[in-house]
Amino acid sequence: MAKELKDLTKRSENYSQWYNELVVKADLAEQSAVRGCMVIKPYGYAIWEKMQRQLDDMFKETGHVNAYFPLLIPKSFLSREAEHVEGFAKECAVVTHYRLKNAADGSGVVVDPAARLEEELIIRPTSETIIWNTYKNWIHSYRDLPVLCNQWANVFRWEMRTRLFLRTAEFLWQEGHTAHATRQEAEEEAKRMLDVYADFAENYMGIPVVKGVKSANERFAGALDTYTIEAMMQDGKALQSGTSHFLGQNFAKAFDVQFVNKENQLEYVWATSWGVSTRLVGALIMTHSDDNGLVLPPRLAPIQVVIVPIYKNEEQLKQIDAKVAGIVARLKALGISVKYDNADNKRPGFKFADYELRGVPVRLVMGGRDLENGTMEVMRRDTLEKETRPCEGIEEYVRDLLDEIQANIHRKALDYRTSRVSTVDTYEEFKEKIEEGGFILAHWDGTTETEEKIKEETKATIRCIPYDSFVPGDKEPGRCMVTGKPSPCKVIFARAY
Amino acid sequence: MAKELKDLTKRSENYSQWYNELVVKADLAEQSAVRGCMVIKPYGYAIWEKMQRQLDDMFKETGHVNAYFPLLIPKSFLSREAEHVEGFAKECAVVTHYRLKNAADGSGVVVDPAARLEEELIIRPTSETIIWNTYKNWIHSYRDLPVLCNQWANVFRWEMRTRLFLRTAEFLWQEGHTAHATRQEAEEEAKRMLDVYADFAENYMGIPVVKGVKSANERFAGALDTYTIEAMMQDGKALQSGTSHFLGQNFAKAFDVQFVNKENQLEYVWATSWGVSTRLVGALIMTHSDDNGLVLPPRLAPIQVVIVPIYKNEEQLKQIDAKVAGIVARLKALGISVKYDNADNKRPGFKFADYELRGVPVRLVMGGRDLENGTMEVMRRDTLEKETRPCEGIEEYVRDLLDEIQANIHRKALDYRTSRVSTVDTYEEFKEKIEEGGFILAHWDGTTETEEKIKEETKATIRCIPYDSFVPGDKEPGRCMVTGKPSPCKVIFARAY
Repeated sequence: MAKELKDLTKRSENYSQWYNELVVKADLAEQSAVRGCMVIKPYGYAIWEKMQRQLDDMFKETGHVNAYFPLLIPKSFLSREAEHVEGFAKECAVVTHYRLKNAADGSGVVVDPAARLEEELIIRPTSETIIWNTYKNWIHSYRDLPVLCNQWANVFRWEMRTRLFLRTAEFLWQEGHTAHATRQEAEEEAKRMLDVYADFAENYMGIPVVKGVKSANERFAGALDTYTIEAMMQDGKALQSGTSHFLGQNFAKAFDVQFVNKENQLEYVWATSWGVSTRLVGALIMTHSDDNGLVLPPRLAPIQVVIVPIYKNEEQLKQIDAKVAGIVARLKALGISVKYDNADNKRPGFKFADYELRGVPVRLVMGGRDLENGTMEVMRRDTLEKETRPCEGIEEYVRDLLDEIQANIHRKALDYRTSRVSTVDTYEEFKEKIEEGGFILAHWDGTTETEEKIKEETKATIRCIPYDSFVPGDKEPGRCMVTGKPSPCKVIFARAY
Repeated sequence: MAKELKDLTKRSENYSQWYNELVVKADLAEQSAVRGCMVIKPYGYAIWEKMQRQLDDMFKETGHVNAYFPLLIPKSFLSREAEHVEGFAKECAVVTHYRLKNAADGSGVVVDPAARLEEELIIRPTSETIIWNTYKNWIHSYRDLPVLCNQWANVFRWEMRTRLFLRTAEFLWQEGHTAHATRQEAEEEAKRMLDVYADFAENYMGIPVVKGVKSANERFAGALDTYTIEAMMQDGKALQSGTSHFLGQNFAKAFDVQFVNKENQLEYVWATSWGVSTRLVGALIMTHSDDNGLVLPPRLAPIQVVIVPIYKNEEQLKQIDAKVAGIVARLKALGISVKYDNADNKRPGFKFADYELRGVPVRLVMGGRDLENGTMEVMRRDTLEKETRPCEGIEEYVRDLLDEIQANIHRKALDYRTSRVSTVDTYEEFKEKIEEGGFILAHWDGTTETEEKIKEETKATIRCIPYDSFVPGDKEPGRCMVTGKPSPCKVIFARAY
């Protein structure tokens, strides 16, 4: 086994280091020459492509279409919405010039001072402003509504501390931007898209998530309400995995987007926006993977099944090749992505460790004795359990096993989360518990002051006010653990990525 | 019929204006608030998505994988390859700062002078430099080769004169960047990808293209050879539609990418790059469309078949709805994308004109008499011919008709091109002919001086030296029409977009 595959730090030793090493060792991504920007390597990008394809289908099923808006935004657009500029101005990459020229001393190229822009442009940190400036021309009457656009794009936020996938200066994402005739329709849309995200997280990523509403303090800059799905990582920290915003009429007012309603009156348009990003790849890794490497949910694994031959000589390999060819064809016919790795420059042990590291859900091995007996060894990556099965009917067995693995890793993540949820009544208890990690349900008086005091003293934030009851009794009223003021229900606190 | 649908300028009146109007009226794209940047509207983006999906499949079939590299490139990277910087420095968007702040006078936000970058970053105009800087870490031995990566991305070139799709400051594209152990393998790769582009142009876009090699003057900045596919638009002008570059060892040397070959010697890596962009959408429009609007090849049309009911009353509509439902289901089962437009807020005449404008290849209409007779009216967009057909078996008829339309628009474009190709022997004749447009085959002495003299005097450029004989005798040697010096074969001249 290659040394690099073995020396992965254990989660129990240093979870954060385990993650950083795993992303690089499993060939998912790496740092680039540009501060805070990553290179997404082919294997990592293949996971993102599978996510994209599935999400895109789900967006289209719910009536959305894709479009593309400019990368650069005039600086002044940002100032139009007061909270929005407050939220993003401090992390904007700014384009000031449009030309380079040769340095007078021949040392290379320099910025041409003569090519200074009259108004600076910023690289989009998010596209509400440029999109609502465009919608102004698209929307005149209630007949033009709703507008249901999504965009797959790169965005840029100059983050000071970055980590591969979880927080990078440039990241890939999708951003939906919708326009509606009524407040109710916009609110429903924002919630519908959160449901789509939750569906995707639970059923494709195998990640249990809590749906809820953000506190005012944690809202998107410019939103009236932010809905969120919150996941729990294996170190008990929370990861915000997708958000959907009800923007009210804020952007319509900022960009003067009005429409004539059915009663022939001018009215401002109602808006939503919603997005998920390459951060989801980080969530995927952190939720399921183990000390041997990645564990990928079959529905998002670029390779679902790998087949490795073990052979003594060329002739035996030929016999195995012939036998495996039919199995590969039948697996493909079942819609399963399969790789037969009979490369002769790597030994089986190396291949085993490599595919374990890469999280391929099912491994099939055929050796000399299997060939005689008409069997194969089946290993499932999630539990590392092996068994020998007859080749006859192995394709259907593998198909069902993939479903079982998909269900099992979700169940495992859910069990873990359940074991890390607690309820507290006093702030003293809270301060103790929060050191252990996990989600803590507690009463809060609803004020930003109290929220910030808690954050400052414990590094915990309010992840959300859950839609549904999360633990028994959490929807009953009580008193804030800090101030003793009335509280309508408990909310979820956690330390977060 | 809505006025806006009717007043499309005729191609014969003003081809350029016809194009500009059509892009906007057919809802494909529009200018944005940012100079030279377009908004790609949902219908235009749907065409690009179909192109992407098909090209992506073709890249994967030829062994390529997708990855993602940073948007921003350190300025100094550009200077590493002398010709490359020469080619791109004058059109680079430059990021100089990473933060905005509130203006002291409260007038909005200004660039924070304290947040000036030590080294400026440019927005990628193409990614050879950042990618080869990355490949340096990926490639050490011949076992690491070939590297066959593709990237779907946005790029930025500060163009002075822009036109929707054809030339925009920001555009979407794919860029393949491959690394090889030998010169021969890299040259083969560059040619293979040109073949992929030609296959896509001919068989999906329905656009006949000439494959050939660029003259030194028209080569990509940093390439040893640029291969191109050249198409002819309906005004006789050429449109370069895709290029593939053999980069030699230029970028490997610039970024010091060496590998240990099988003989255990250090050697520089051989490279290719190749790309097509949203410009292809412009090529598609310009090649097939007519004075009634878009004509789309069925294989790239977002909607292949539209069905419109004509009815007297609600009851009749219900009967038509019921009848059409089965036809829609059967068309979908054949893999055909179909839209049934029974919206009651637009009249049939408006719908007809709208779908004609949008280039939907086949229109089916069912009226009261059709309902009685079990028939439908079939209209094909390419010829505007109508006929009445029995509903029985209409699905297979439509499927075959879509194939026939795909073939017909290619044939039509090919016939047009054939009619606009001429051969000349003297420069006098050339100067006359070039005013008429079209491709002109002529002898050229192979020098940049002569090429530039011709360009200056006639605005014509050498589009390519075709791979294969293009008109009888063009591969025979002769004498340059300008200088009388020897020439091995005729080359293609044209005025170009």
